[in-house]
Order: sequence, then structure tokens, then C-alpha cells
Amino acid sequence: MNIKEYMHTLGQQAKQASRPIAKANTGVKNVALITIAKKLQNDRQNILAANQRDMKNGRTNGLDAALLDRLELTPDRFKTMVAGLEQVASLPDPVGEISDMKYMPSGIQVGKMRVPLGVIGIIYESRPNVTIEAASLCLKSGNACILRGGSEAIDTNQVIASSIHAGLVESGLPENSVQIINTTDRAAVGELITMPNFVDVIVPRGGKGLIDRISKESRVPVIKHLHGVCHVYIDAEANEEKALRIALNAKTQRYGTCNTMETLLVSSVLADSILPKLASLYEEKGVELRGCDKTMSVIDSINPASEEDWDEEYLAPILSIKVVQSIDEAIAHINQHGSEHTDAIVTENYTRSRQFITEVDSSSVMVNASTRFADGFEYGLGAEIGISTDKIHARGPVGLEGLTSQKYIVLGDGHIRT
Amino acid sequence: MNIKEYMHTLGQQAKQASRPIAKANTGVKNVALITIAKKLQNDRQNILAANQRDMKNGRTNGLDAALLDRLELTPDRFKTMVAGLEQVASLPDPVGEISDMKYMPSGIQVGKMRVPLGVIGIIYESRPNVTIEAASLCLKSGNACILRGGSEAIDTNQVIASSIHAGLVESGLPENSVQIINTTDRAAVGELITMPNFVDVIVPRGGKGLIDRISKESRVPVIKHLHGVCHVYIDAEANEEKALRIALNAKTQRYGTCNTMETLLVSSVLADSILPKLASLYEEKGVELRGCDKTMSVIDSINPASEEDWDEEYLAPILSIKVVQSIDEAIAHINQHGSEHTDAIVTENYTRSRQFITEVDSSSVMVNASTRFADGFEYGLGAEIGISTDKIHARGPVGLEGLTSQKYIVLGDGHIRT
Repeated sequence: MNIKEYMHTLGQQAKQASRPIAKANTGVKNVALITIAKKLQNDRQNILAANQRDMKNGRTNGLDAALLDRLELTPDRFKTMVAGLEQVASLPDPVGEISDMKYMPSGIQVGKMRVPLGVIGIIYESRPNVTIEAASLCLKSGNACILRGGSEAIDTNQVIASSIHAGLVESGLPENSVQIINTTDRAAVGELITMPNFVDVIVPRGGKGLIDRISKESRVPVIKHLHGVCHVYIDAEANEEKALRIALNAKTQRYGTCNTMETLLVSSVLADSILPKLASLYEEKGVELRGCDKTMSVIDSINPASEEDWDEEYLAPILSIKVVQSIDEAIAHINQHGSEHTDAIVTENYTRSRQFITEVDSSSVMVNASTRFADGFEYGLGAEIGISTDKIHARGPVGLEGLTSQKYIVLGDGHIRT
Repeated sequence: MNIKEYMHTLGQQAKQASRPIAKANTGVKNVALITIAKKLQNDRQNILAANQRDMKNGRTNGLDAALLDRLELTPDRFKTMVAGLEQVASLPDPVGEISDMKYMPSGIQVGKMRVPLGVIGIIYESRPNVTIEAASLCLKSGNACILRGGSEAIDTNQVIASSIHAGLVESGLPENSVQIINTTDRAAVGELITMPNFVDVIVPRGGKGLIDRISKESRVPVIKHLHGVCHVYIDAEANEEKALRIALNAKTQRYGTCNTMETLLVSSVLADSILPKLASLYEEKGVELRGCDKTMSVIDSINPASEEDWDEEYLAPILSIKVVQSIDEAIAHINQHGSEHTDAIVTENYTRSRQFITEVDSSSVMVNASTRFADGFEYGLGAEIGISTDKIHARGPVGLEGLTSQKYIVLGDGHIRT
């Protein structure tokens, strides 16, 4: 079978499985999640052995240390992965929720019911734990899924696939509600994103280059996370203690995450007083600072920020700093250079807090809180398939609800339109 | 300026206008809508004269009667068009609505705020009243828009554009928040749907062929209405009187609308008793019936339905009828042959009503009500930009809310992540 035929077979099977999984009740889905957890536990040795083979091949092929680290399933990570299934089982089921039932003048009662999207294609990197995360979120939200993990994890993912299938079958759910692509051929991705008859939405996870390419080539709607150029704006009326705390946390709590601050905007009113304090805090943490002219005139011996710096997602201990004359300049800078991800203002001023929230066009907008909070768990979603920087369907952290949609339901008593 | 440059200029201008229009408050937007209504009223003679030129060109070019009818702005239609602006002004503003603000264990308060999508591109047929409808809905929902009406209406639309611009400017809103493409060159559509930097979403309105093509070629998310193959299923436990009333209304109240029933499914339990009564009702209205074998054995002298009939959107006084053995067969038929638009069951049975609502995967699912109710006005949306048969973002009738999205807002008091 060639790749095209293989992918169409997966697509057809997923479409078929999507009906029974959509109508499976909450109890059955939860039992399936727990059963899969048990199967994984039983297959632990096989899975860890497959992972060792993937690791060995990775080393042979010269994978870098960071990639190898993400590929590895340590005993601890295995435990966390299995526990994740139980956690998803404990979340409320979004499917079937009925809301807003209202009587209309005609006498009909109209409302909305939350329903699965259908078939979800997920493309991600060589992290075997994401296989379980993605499968469990799709299952709980009543969606069939086709998963395509990074090629370096192929052996691990195939063994995990067997455990998932065994758990589904034992729970009476269709085996094909979770399918994992069994080839490393890149053409499989090309097919997956161009089968609108079989696939309802694509969720790509990975680097900006990959996601950009998938968005361009996909014939299927994409829920995507492009990148995170996040800002903190310290307003003229910021409380200094809160400002220092948030600016430090937003940059240094973790460097490699998408919700880490990359550019700090400081009101010119506070620049002389607060910048030296910030500089010494960042120096302690080893953060390289790059500043605008005004910043450089206040803080000694830092590098100048180039125009490119304002658009940069460093994902590293580097921070660009710009002094702005007003909140309007701050908002304009964010809307121009940001990535519509997460941006925060530090202020005690009521009017400016409202202005910032209203006018900053990002998926998360914060007042007096660290950008690092932009996360499905911190937002109480209980899980996260990704963070969307799109404008339609879902913005920000996407949990179970983001994998569903709402249809209209209409209840009548023989009503006709006149 | 060539078409590409022209469209990029429109895109850039729309993007620029999208910020001020997004933050315009409800009062200002309402005043603008009323002011545009006044300008249209003042420009009435010019608009009607332009429309007569379009009509004359249409006749010269051999447009058929139906197209000419839709193109014509009669005095009555002009009045309705202007009144539509006042109606949109009276609707609640969806922008800025804050919901679900909840405290999290970390102490932050997290909720959602409804926000405009940004720039909306709308492609529609030669119906000048749609220009006003689309412009007013985008304006009220805080979006900038680029409108592309059918080429036959170009003169009318250009004069309407001047009235809209005059109204916007007088109200202090950016002129470019509504732009109407001033060329009939088809390449303009190709550009409009491939400018993701400037356009956030495309709403195509028109025939299935056009919408299919736009979906395929668009580099921008599309909110689309493909077609309506709607069903009524008369269950074994239907109340006969309700069944007859609904089946008649769903087919014959209007033939050319997307929510008109195209296939009637009848439980085998009732077939012998109800089909002759239905046949005589439809005969009175001059509806051509096409039946399955069982239907043909009960009703004399009707045509057999071919396999293609089950997938057909007739938009005409034609109805295909199929007798089914069970609700499962009915649901399977709908999910296979329907267009995920609107489907109804007639039943007094509690369990089967719930099953139908849950398992039929359509944007509107109804119990004991006519499919003809699937409409933004009947659903209380106050307006409708179209009916979506998509699965993500919005399903079913799309009103002002469908032209918005929700971002997360986070309120803290100096909170950092630990």
C-alpha cells in the first residue's frame, strides 16, 4: 500500500470510529481511559525497551541533547504519563452539555449542545508522553484522532499504540478511535492535512517553521500555536514591588516556554528609578539585557536592542527592554511586535488597566500577574492540547472544550414556520 | 495599480482601521449605523439610478430573471435595507462581554472577554442589500471588512460605498472600516483569500461551486455554508397531526431556501397509514415525489428515487421519500447523506428524541419543529451573516457573536508563578 492509500485508509477508519466515540457516554470513556492506563502499566517493560531502541538510534543519528532528553521515557516520566490518563478521566465531560435553552416568540425553544469535532489530526515532536496526552484528550472529548509523532519516537509510539488499542477494545470502544501513523515517511503529514473528507481539524505542535508550513498547506482547519513574543508593561502607576516581582518571574521562572516574557516595556516616568533595580535582579540570574537608547542611558554596559529584537522569541536568558512614553505607545508596540499570545500590564490605575485589557489583541491579557500563568492547568481547564494564537474557534490555552463545538437544538411541539 | 497592489492596499487599510473600530464603544457604533442609514436615505436617488444602470447592463448581458430579481433595488427593498441598519443598531453589542471570571487556586482570577475577529472578507452575489447587511454586522461586531459583491451590482455597490463612508466619517469612525472592492476583476477574490497578514476570516456566500473553490484556495480561515440537504424523520411514535403539519411546512413553505426539507424519512410502522395522506397534501401543492421501493408500493404513480436523489439539494418542489426500519437507520441515513445543516425528528417518544438530538451530527437538530426554523432571526440572534455548516468556530446560523471570539483575561495582585 502506498502512503496515499495508507493515509486514506486511516482517514476512513477514523471517520467510521468517530460516530461511536462521539456517542459513547462519560462512564464508558472514563473506564476506557483507566483501562488504557492499566494496559500501559502491564506493557511497561516493552515500552521502555522500545524507547531505549529509539534513544540508541537517536544517538547513532546524532540527535542533540535537548531532543534526546525529550525523547526519553524515564521511569518517572512513565509514571506521570500513566497518571495523566487518570487525571483526564476525572475531568468533567464537555460533550452533550446543553446551554442557553430559551423560548422564542414563535414558541420553539432554542439552545446549544456541545458536541465533538469529529476526527482530529495531531502532529507533534518526538515526545512519547504527548501521544498519551493527545489520545486521552481526544477520547474524553469524544473525538477520533490520528496521531503523528516525531519520527525519532516511532518504536516507542508503536508499542504505546498497541496498549491503547488493547484498552479501547477491552472497554468496548472502537480500536480506530485512536490511530498512530506507523511510518516515518514525511509524505504522511502531507496527506493527513489534505483529507477534508476524513479529518475535521489539525492541531500541529512543534517549531514555528513546521506550524507555518502546515498552516500554508492544510486543506483542513488548523488550531495552531505559532510562537510567543510576550510582554510585560510597567505602567507609570505601577506598584514597584509588584512590578519587580512580576518582571522577574515572567522572564526567569522558565526560559524555554512560550509564555515567557521576551520584551519588557517600562514607562518613562519610572525608568530612572526602576531600571537599575531590574538590572541588578536580572544580572543575578544571568539574563542578558538589550535596551533601547533610553534604557542604555540608565543601565550601564548593556547591549543595544536592534529592530529585530522587538520581534524575537528568544526562549533563552535574553530580554529586550524599551522605555515608552505612554500606555498608548506600549499597546501599539505590543499589537505591532507581539504574537497575540500573552501580555501583561503592571499598574494600580483603574482606567489604564481597563484600557490595556480592552485594546491589547492577544489571546491572554493580564493585569498585575506574570505571563507565565498562561497555561491550561493554571486557567483551570484541567488539561491542555496546546495554546492557540488563532483568532477563530479558540484563543489561548485549549483544553477539552476547545476540542468540541456547539450545535443548535430546537424543541417544538408541532411548530411550523408561518 | 495592478490588482495585487490594489488588494494589498485595501488589506493594509483594513488592518489599520481594525484597531479603532475594535475599541469603538457601543454608542459610537450605533450612531454610525444610524448616520449611515440617513446618508443612504439622502443618496436614495443616486443609488436607485445606479441600480437601474446595473439592471440595464444585466439585461443587455442576458442575466436570467432570477438574477435580475435579486439585483433589483425596488423602493420597498430600499426601505427594508435602510431599516436593517436601525435594527442592527438596536441589537446588544457582543464586544467586551466578560464571562466566567473565576478564582484559581493560585489566587489569579481568570475569565473570558468577547472580542472582534479583526478583518473580515465577505464574498457574495449581486444583491446590493447584502452590502448593507454585511457592513452593518461587521461594524456592530467591531470588525473592519472588505466586501466583494457580485460584478453585476458594481455600480449600485459603489454608490452605496460612498454613503457608508460619509456616515462613518461623520461619526468619527475610520472610513476604511468598510471597504468595497471597486473592480469586477475576478483576480481580486484570489488576492482577498490569500492575504492572511491582513484578513482574519473569509465569509463566502453564494453557490456551492463558488464556496467549494474558495474553501480550497483560501489561505485564511473560512466560515462557510456549503449546502442544505435537510431531513424530517417521522418516527413510529409520531403524532400524526404534528407529522403532517411539519412535513408539509418543511417542504412547501419556501422551496428555494437552504433549510427546506429535501428528503423525508418515514418509519415503516407508519408508512401504510401516513404516506397516502402526505401524498395528497403534497399533490395539492404540486410537489413531485420520488420514493424508495416501499414508498412506491404505498403511493401510486410516483417516480422512483435514484441513489443520487438522497444527496440532492433540489431547491425546488421535489421531495424524495424513504421508508426506514428504525431510528438507527434514519440517523445513519442522515449522517451519510445529509449536509450537516438541519434535521428534525417528529416523535412523542422521550428516549428516541434524546437519541436523535445526540446522534445526528448537524448544525441544527430539531424535535417536533419544522426545519424552516433554522435561521438567525428565528433563533433570536437578531441578524444573520449566514448559516455555517463548518465544525469549528460556529455551527448553524451566525449572528454578531459568530463574528467575534473570546480572549482570556487574568486579574492578579502581583501574582507570580512558582
